[in-house]
Amino acid sequence: MTYWNLKPAIQGLQEARHEWREQQHRLKDIGGRELPSKNALKKILDDLCGILFPMRLGPVELRQEAEDYYIAYTLERVLNDLYQQVQLTLNYQNKRQAKLPYLSSDLENELKQDQARDIVQTLADALPNIRRTLDADVCAAYDGDPAAHSVDEILLCYPGIFAIMYHRIAHHLYAHVPLLSRIISELAHSATGIDIHPGAQIGPGFFIDHGTGVVIGETCIIGKRVRIYQAVTLGAKRFEITANGGLKKDYARHPIVEDDVVIYAGATILGRITIGKNSVIGGNVWLTHSIPANSQVFQQNHELALKLSS
Amino acid sequence: MTYWNLKPAIQGLQEARHEWREQQHRLKDIGGRELPSKNALKKILDDLCGILFPMRLGPVELRQEAEDYYIAYTLERVLNDLYQQVQLTLNYQNKRQAKLPYLSSDLENELKQDQARDIVQTLADALPNIRRTLDADVCAAYDGDPAAHSVDEILLCYPGIFAIMYHRIAHHLYAHVPLLSRIISELAHSATGIDIHPGAQIGPGFFIDHGTGVVIGETCIIGKRVRIYQAVTLGAKRFEITANGGLKKDYARHPIVEDDVVIYAGATILGRITIGKNSVIGGNVWLTHSIPANSQVFQQNHELALKLSS
Amino acid sequence: MTYWNLKPAIQGLQEARHEWREQQHRLKDIGGRELPSKNALKKILDDLCGILFPMRLGPVELRQEAEDYYIAYTLERVLNDLYQQVQLTLNYQNKRQAKLPYLSSDLENELKQDQARDIVQTLADALPNIRRTLDADVCAAYDGDPAAHSVDEILLCYPGIFAIMYHRIAHHLYAHVPLLSRIISELAHSATGIDIHPGAQIGPGFFIDHGTGVVIGETCIIGKRVRIYQAVTLGAKRFEITANGGLKKDYARHPIVEDDVVIYAGATILGRITIGKNSVIGGNVWLTHSIPANSQVFQQNHELALKLSS
Amino acid sequence: MTYWNLKPAIQGLQEARHEWREQQHRLKDIGGRELPSKNALKKILDDLCGILFPMRLGPVELRQEAEDYYIAYTLERVLNDLYQQVQLTLNYQNKRQAKLPYLSSDLENELKQDQARDIVQTLADALPNIRRTLDADVCAAYDGDPAAHSVDEILLCYPGIFAIMYHRIAHHLYAHVPLLSRIISELAHSATGIDIHPGAQIGPGFFIDHGTGVVIGETCIIGKRVRIYQAVTLGAKRFEITANGGLKKDYARHPIVEDDVVIYAGATILGRITIGKNSVIGGNVWLTHSIPANSQVFQQNHELALKLSS
Amino acid sequence: MTYWNLKPAIQGLQEARHEWREQQHRLKDIGGRELPSKNALKKILDDLCGILFPMRLGPVELRQEAEDYYIAYTLERVLNDLYQQVQLTLNYQNKRQAKLPYLSSDLENELKQDQARDIVQTLADALPNIRRTLDADVCAAYDGDPAAHSVDEILLCYPGIFAIMYHRIAHHLYAHVPLLSRIISELAHSATGIDIHPGAQIGPGFFIDHGTGVVIGETCIIGKRVRIYQAVTLGAKRFEITANGGLKKDYARHPIVEDDVVIYAGATILGRITIGKNSVIGGNVWLTHSIPANSQVFQQNHELALKLSS
Amino acid sequence: MTYWNLKPAIQGLQEARHEWREQQHRLKDIGGRELPSKNALKKILDDLCGILFPMRLGPVELRQEAEDYYIAYTLERVLNDLYQQVQLTLNYQNKRQAKLPYLSSDLENELKQDQARDIVQTLADALPNIRRTLDADVCAAYDGDPAAHSVDEILLCYPGIFAIMYHRIAHHLYAHVPLLSRIISELAHSATGIDIHPGAQIGPGFFIDHGTGVVIGETCIIGKRVRIYQAVTLGAKRFEITANGGLKKDYARHPIVEDDVVIYAGATILGRITIGKNSVIGGNVWLTHSIPANSQVFQQNHELALKLSS
Repeated sequence: MTYWNLKPAIQGLQEARHEWREQQHRLKDIGGRELPSKNALKKILDDLCGILFPMRLGPVELRQEAEDYYIAYTLERVLNDLYQQVQLTLNYQNKRQAKLPYLSSDLENELKQDQARDIVQTLADALPNIRRTLDADVCAAYDGDPAAHSVDEILLCYPGIFAIMYHRIAHHLYAHVPLLSRIISELAHSATGIDIHPGAQIGPGFFIDHGTGVVIGETCIIGKRVRIYQAVTLGAKRFEITANGGLKKDYARHPIVEDDVVIYAGATILGRITIGKNSVIGGNVWLTHSIPANSQVFQQNHELALKLSS
Repeated sequence: MTYWNLKPAIQGLQEARHEWREQQHRLKDIGGRELPSKNALKKILDDLCGILFPMRLGPVELRQEAEDYYIAYTLERVLNDLYQQVQLTLNYQNKRQAKLPYLSSDLENELKQDQARDIVQTLADALPNIRRTLDADVCAAYDGDPAAHSVDEILLCYPGIFAIMYHRIAHHLYAHVPLLSRIISELAHSATGIDIHPGAQIGPGFFIDHGTGVVIGETCIIGKRVRIYQAVTLGAKRFEITANGGLKKDYARHPIVEDDVVIYAGATILGRITIGKNSVIGGNVWLTHSIPANSQVFQQNHELALKLSS
Repeated sequence: MTYWNLKPAIQGLQEARHEWREQQHRLKDIGGRELPSKNALKKILDDLCGILFPMRLGPVELRQEAEDYYIAYTLERVLNDLYQQVQLTLNYQNKRQAKLPYLSSDLENELKQDQARDIVQTLADALPNIRRTLDADVCAAYDGDPAAHSVDEILLCYPGIFAIMYHRIAHHLYAHVPLLSRIISELAHSATGIDIHPGAQIGPGFFIDHGTGVVIGETCIIGKRVRIYQAVTLGAKRFEITANGGLKKDYARHPIVEDDVVIYAGATILGRITIGKNSVIGGNVWLTHSIPANSQVFQQNHELALKLSS
Repeated sequence: MTYWNLKPAIQGLQEARHEWREQQHRLKDIGGRELPSKNALKKILDDLCGILFPMRLGPVELRQEAEDYYIAYTLERVLNDLYQQVQLTLNYQNKRQAKLPYLSSDLENELKQDQARDIVQTLADALPNIRRTLDADVCAAYDGDPAAHSVDEILLCYPGIFAIMYHRIAHHLYAHVPLLSRIISELAHSATGIDIHPGAQIGPGFFIDHGTGVVIGETCIIGKRVRIYQAVTLGAKRFEITANGGLKKDYARHPIVEDDVVIYAGATILGRITIGKNSVIGGNVWLTHSIPANSQVFQQNHELALKLSS
Repeated sequence: MTYWNLKPAIQGLQEARHEWREQQHRLKDIGGRELPSKNALKKILDDLCGILFPMRLGPVELRQEAEDYYIAYTLERVLNDLYQQVQLTLNYQNKRQAKLPYLSSDLENELKQDQARDIVQTLADALPNIRRTLDADVCAAYDGDPAAHSVDEILLCYPGIFAIMYHRIAHHLYAHVPLLSRIISELAHSATGIDIHPGAQIGPGFFIDHGTGVVIGETCIIGKRVRIYQAVTLGAKRFEITANGGLKKDYARHPIVEDDVVIYAGATILGRITIGKNSVIGGNVWLTHSIPANSQVFQQNHELALKLSS
Repeated sequence: MTYWNLKPAIQGLQEARHEWREQQHRLKDIGGRELPSKNALKKILDDLCGILFPMRLGPVELRQEAEDYYIAYTLERVLNDLYQQVQLTLNYQNKRQAKLPYLSSDLENELKQDQARDIVQTLADALPNIRRTLDADVCAAYDGDPAAHSVDEILLCYPGIFAIMYHRIAHHLYAHVPLLSRIISELAHSATGIDIHPGAQIGPGFFIDHGTGVVIGETCIIGKRVRIYQAVTLGAKRFEITANGGLKKDYARHPIVEDDVVIYAGATILGRITIGKNSVIGGNVWLTHSIPANSQVFQQNHELALKLSS
């Protein structure tokens, strides 16, 4: 034990906070925290996964006869919890956040207290379809990986399924509470190394194998039965600048990937281009223009470019 | 607080589960959960790491005089815990899982209740050799990284050691309880970004530096003293199709890496090829054919291919 | 329940530990554990993040009026906790660790009991400036990502900010307690997939987007307002060997990146080279020589090298 | 930290256990623990109380619409947990415990594996009536205490209600798993200072005020609407001795208290006597013979016996 | 595992709840729980005790220099927590509870939302005086018990101090939120066996030794420097009946104990009588009339009444 | 949420603490807390109970084969924990506490750092005999209560055994660290309502039934095979006053109870008197003089003194 001189740190941190608040025009803010909570959302997502797959991701002691009881009780609770987080997020967004350009002013006006209720109820109503879509994702993984021995192994072990489960929930919420959705997507990113922006639109039967390093951008549109591997980037090619010199935000800048495309590990696909259906993109390919359906794109000189000195 | 309309979600989820069970021919299943538990296995692995390295990964208050007491008490407990998970896994596998083609029918018959005991006892007996192999891995890391200041830093900080520690335990269990092994390997994958399939065979003195994005496939065979860097893939080149149009599973499709090979970051090595001993594979190399011993393979035109517009 | 034969494992592990201790010349060591604790440091870093950003990373129920109270109380506690970990680390380093070549022998002598106090107090005094630097990092992220809707979203969701927050604290401690710093950096690596060695010197306004797979080496020097993307490596080109055949440790072997440089995803920059200010390094570029200011480096044949077989 | 000489304690404790096991004829016992768990039963009782009174003792966030969901899910779980504890208790009782004399040999034979199921299902079926009886107890407390401001205050604050709630559950289980019932009654005794043996038969509308020091013996029979105060003992007068010199066990030796009796604080009522209905027993009365209905018994010389020296 | 028939229990409990709600005229209630939480209050009291005695009941790692920081931060938090519980209680009381007769209708009207704030702020303002009173209680215990070796032993070990600490807080809140106060007093009763109704008025320098079985009624008035022992009852003699046959509630019915009185173990003092100052009441005395100052009351025939049969 | 005015409370509490410290001559004290921790001792006692009775009070999953391992590992840990608490207590006692008169000045001098080690090691060495004595206590309970169905029920359910187990450990430590012993005895008092001062000397075969309200004073001496019931007090008759007007502390003032005595519920026995062996003391008896061996003492007029008005 020893004695610490705390004054300089306390005083200095106070000044630093003051500078920040001045710069951000927040000096008049007082009161409590108005941000959604990462820990609360982690708990909510855990519960939603259990509700979607009760016998595999629910409580270990659950029996099949009690599935509906478990779901009903847990759903009531989790919707209340989510409702709190949605309210916090809406309040925050109304006060601080840059408006989303693609939200009509009608929608903007609707951002009121009872909007939270609609957002949450709509998610509840969507759960059965989310489950069906995830079942298709699981089957796609089983059909797409020779190392998979059962559909249950997919659900328990594959980080790609974890990431897409979180994404399908986060995406559902994205139009109304984008900040909350982003926290959900980062929970999945931290657990899996797979970074899917909640704005991305992804069809059923989607399979990411291994997954570490995958990046899927905000305005991506991905069709049905698409399969991608680790370290694939579906990104923006360049950022447009607005008249006042800042970044233009919220415009379509990421690829469209059509049905039944396969993209191998390390491929980088940039810009608002279209990968036609049934195409195959080889490993490490760098692609910034659209390609038609049924294309097969590989690095031409892969084997040739090696200098052997054995 | 508000009131939720839960009926559509509960009813809809019930229907979605019914569809799934019908499709998977599981409608007659009833009863409790039969899958091993990720949380239980996380606790088991934590304990096994403490048993292997009591003064560095065991409880902080442990003193060297009490090492054997700690090990004996913890081992008794952890073997009981593992025994439960192994039993769950065997039951599940007998009921659901596609048979592993390389398991003889004799072995298949042996998948009975008392098999669980043998699996667990055999792991216990193997722990001293696993420890010796991991000691060799630690020394290899110390010898291979100029930033490493001590062997203890390796054990405490290097994700590569964490991943190989989990792998050596998972691999030991893989022949009999593959689903359980996969859960262990995904625990390591989530914590480190290093994805080693539990089927891979890896010799002593193995060192992965940084590690994020490394993928090592199911049928890889890696010799002694091999060193690899982040984002290296040892994968399959293509998947073979069976007569009925599905993926052929469980055949040798990943590389053999012989002793003393070094593979630099981002290299992609695909297919059942052999990297001869003492070879060096440069960063970002893409390799799909075998190379003899003592080869040095680099991307020929790395420096040349750059277009400078400064 | 069943009965286990524990003797072979206990005895065998004892022998394996004996072999290791003999090889490492540690047979005479007795007593308790002398290593810092990963769990203790995780708790300390959580508290320091709350102290730095009380209304956003502090306890959810905190109100702005009570900020200073919270900071004072938490700071007193966290400095005591850190002091214990620093003492453990200093004792360990004095006893075991290879001396850091760049530490003068004066400094070496100073590694005594009361040094721990100075190390901890100095960190406390540095917190206001760390906060200011992190504010600049947050603004850089907001200005650099079209998907970012608010500065608060950056702090809550962006793994790059998490990693740089941990790094700025770890780096502050690196000169004196490198082992402890390394544990901090691996906590961030495990959570984000971003591996920044605590020795790296990084200027303000630093932004890493997505981040998975980024590696920044021990002797890197990075200027102001630098922006990098996922899977970028700032590494060593080759390792020098000392007269006795071991690796030469602790010499400048990683890149210098000057102000306002942007490095796109997957670029690999190796060796003690300099990237001149305002330069842009394209995705997947492999670079091992210095480039002047205002350079733009891209892979020349990206588009050309593709073999289309559509 | 210091070094302890553990050998004498370990060796000495081993010898002491050996002596005990020899004396108790348990030397041949091996294996695991066969006793029910106090902690597990504490959790089970908490859940049963929530099931009985969901809006007052259930989870704080529960809403009335979800009562049945909560009950169904929790009941399924708690019955499984109780089933385990009942099985442990039955096994133990079959092996060790003196047979209960009042159990017929038919019942004795029935103590088999599936008996556990019946015991648990029967408790589940009894819960509605237990709830109704407890509602009557609550009303009796409200009607009997001028300090009570609401029926809800009774349920939340009165130790007497806590004790009778545990008792009504324990008593239901007593005929079959007496050891388990005793653990439940001691959980209530520790929390309230009220010691009700689970064998006691107690009618509805029972109210204990304050309660500390109340003792109610195993063979007590208590009618309807009885009210007692702190430190009342309903005990045995003397113990009968069997032919071989031991205590005679399990015979009726405690009072019968008929309907509508009130017993004030500190009264001691001993032996198989009957307190006729509507009687009132004054504070500190010592009573060992039966009294007819409508009696009023007080210490005659209470006021007189005082020696004042003011 | 087995299968349970849950329907009868669920359905039966639903009916039992319906009967209760019908009987209590609560059928129209819907929504969430409106009662204060025992667990929340337990946490709040723990914190308040730490605030009152930071170096003895606060966190173990607290240092004297940081006392004010700890208090300020904890106080802010605990007042918010208490505020929630007070609001819940006020809402409940407005809706359900019998009106307190001694609350004027003016006060009744004031039971509105912002009343909660005043209640909590007033408690905060009262804390310094509560601390001073408790210091006097501690000194009285040290002066009154030959077994006490230090004032700190009193605070750490004596259940009487624990009970009076909870009481002084509960009593402060009693006029406005009696239900909440009763929960606090039962927390102390359960931990100590000392049952002090929160309505009791107790002067400084109060000492209860041993304490188990002590009961102090709602309308007691106790002067300064009073000392009592285990199993003392300060109760009501009889209950008055109202015109409609119910119990008359909320009238003065418990003893007044003047300054410097000592009451030995087991004494029972009943009714609205006065024990004059400096009086001594002997063990087991039963007293139902007032006595003047300086009285000494003992059981006259204690020694004589014994029948020896040695 | 609302805003609190914390200043008056913080300032007022500071002043109240200052007054206390001034009055207690503690103004010069600074630094950290020097008192033993109730929570730490609770954990230590739990562990010691598990060590004494591993298969009944140890961890539920423990198997008999692993008893010694469990004991050795737990003992090493618990002795270290106790050592810390003993050191804290010794430091505190040296600084603050009134000297124990019966401690010689030689012993006083010995209160140094290494004394803590001896205290702890001596307790470890005494554990086997403590176990044997407790086994005798268990048998006495089984032989003395007709409601007891097995010796294991005694250990699991009887509060008297819990209290005597804590007492035998606390008493062993009492001569050297009385404050610590008192905390242990209050842990048992709170859990059971049985208040045994750690100074009391109690022989083997001791049985307390029900127990609530039992008080056993500091200088009691109790022989072998003594049995007592709830609410028995073995107390001091009066307190002697020293020359300076304070209480005389630490002199023999409680009863001596010889072998094979039985004391029924509610009896009060006061002063340094002797209850001769084989005596029986009836319920509610008040006794303040010695009685010879084989006495039987009952309240003479119990039955007669009742006024019946039936």
